[in-house]
Amino acid sequence: MDIELQQKLAQIVRTHRAAALGTIRNGAPIVTMVAYAVADDFSAFYVLTSHLSQHAQDMQKDQHVSLLIAETDDGREDVHGLARISIRGKAETLPFGAPGYTVARNLYLARFPKSEPNFELGDFDLWCITPRGARYIAGFARAFNLTPDAIQEAAAANPSGTLQT
Amino acid sequence: MDIELQQKLAQIVRTHRAAALGTIRNGAPIVTMVAYAVADDFSAFYVLTSHLSQHAQDMQKDQHVSLLIAETDDGREDVHGLARISIRGKAETLPFGAPGYTVARNLYLARFPKSEPNFELGDFDLWCITPRGARYIAGFARAFNLTPDAIQEAAAANPSGTLQT
Repeated sequence: MDIELQQKLAQIVRTHRAAALGTIRNGAPIVTMVAYAVADDFSAFYVLTSHLSQHAQDMQKDQHVSLLIAETDDGREDVHGLARISIRGKAETLPFGAPGYTVARNLYLARFPKSEPNFELGDFDLWCITPRGARYIAGFARAFNLTPDAIQEAAAANPSGTLQT
Repeated sequence: MDIELQQKLAQIVRTHRAAALGTIRNGAPIVTMVAYAVADDFSAFYVLTSHLSQHAQDMQKDQHVSLLIAETDDGREDVHGLARISIRGKAETLPFGAPGYTVARNLYLARFPKSEPNFELGDFDLWCITPRGARYIAGFARAFNLTPDAIQEAAAANPSGTLQT
């Protein structure tokens, strides 16, 4: 994967705020929308969710999750050319006081400042999703399977999330 | 659910072109982006995909799928308020000549005219996803579990997909 494609991947991940989260419920997949924050090096994605939400209950029972982050449909003639990344990961709660909790909380609040009250409530959990791999579709006939290391290389290729055009 | 919320649901489903598809792979969820068409009454969603695609291989092994269709992030202060619908469904291929094939093909091509050559190739399948239920989150504290009948009622509440503002 060349550096332009790495930069494009990092731009998508850094500039979007909503992802599609896949969990397992009663043996079937379920996809819900989540707001996410991401570690600067893409080693972890963070989601804040109520205990009561269905996807939190799913993740309590089964740590296997997937996150899709896709380029926004810009009305182009062929929607199949939109770039997107499907991440496979493992979800774990990050309790208050655990290593990495404060960094994650600050990353999340930098993106979603209105969520601050939810951190004070006892019924919200901060979840950490650690990528185990990903499939990146950068456009037509440009699909790549990525290891966690390759995901982090893409992060390093574009620390600001901007693209030169 | 009042008629304004039904109309909003139908507007989201009719005006978007890309959904997040959840399938099961080796016991774990995986979320990919798909282009979709939808029956006028929301009784079925249609996806055209190569045999070789990973999600086609997943659906061949396990019919359980989920489709998320979400309002586009418009940069509002709190992304959690975006409306979205998570559909649980059953995926089956719709072979050439089967009942409903021509209607489905025409619906798909009306949205994605550039896909016509793919219908001529032997290595693409038209998949029909039949909703078994859905969860509709219309905004803060406005979440609804919908039966297939309730989904179709929303379709009938807004046949054109437009909203009066």
